Amino acid sequence: MRSSTREVEMPALKEMKEFDTVDHFAVPVSDVKNTVEWYLQNFNCKVAYQDDTWALLEFANIRLAFVLPQQHPPHFALLRDPAAFGEPKTHRDGTRSVYLNDPSGNSVEVLALK
Amino acid sequence: MRSSTREVEMPALKEMKEFDTVDHFAVPVSDVKNTVEWYLQNFNCKVAYQDDTWALLEFANIRLAFVLPQQHPPHFALLRDPAAFGEPKTHRDGTRSVYLNDPSGNSVEVLALK
Repeated sequence: MRSSTREVEMPALKEMKEFDTVDHFAVPVSDVKNTVEWYLQNFNCKVAYQDDTWALLEFANIRLAFVLPQQHPPHFALLRDPAAFGEPKTHRDGTRSVYLNDPSGNSVEVLALK
Repeated sequence: MRSSTREVEMPALKEMKEFDTVDHFAVPVSDVKNTVEWYLQNFNCKVAYQDDTWALLEFANIRLAFVLPQQHPPHFALLRDPAAFGEPKTHRDGTRSVYLNDPSGNSVEVLALK
């Protein structure tokens, strides 16, 4: 019985793994410090990075970036090989990405963390 | 050796579980059908729901809603007990939520799926 249960469950797990992961969402804010404090007061998350122009908060399944939109354009990032979508830009932290626009003009970052 | 490795790893796993989960992000679009087709062509995800005014796509770790903003205001949803934040509204699918505004005016849905 145990063996047949495993056989039923495995296709579902395999299907989930095939979907792409959203690494982070950048949310426009007017005040980074006040906004970060509000999320820390109301929700369970932690600050991974913060300066006056943007902050990165970690949640259980995703990271949210809170950005001054004039300095860091709102976007979201999907983990895929960026070279399959264009000429990747290498960032200072060693990550590589290509930025795409979806048909509605949303900025989608195709990101490789290593 | 195995036992001590487990002791090192377990606090990190415990910490991750304490963070809140982002259930979905609503992304404003100008054309639901064209936008959904573009994501299906470029990324690994699947359509959980679609009509002319919005669609819900499942990724590995989160769901993205693509919405006509005049009909479905952009927001994102965190899984927490909404009753701790106000008087929950019960939706047609049985989920319950309270909508908050962060200090920058972003709409945050505090959502219970059951």
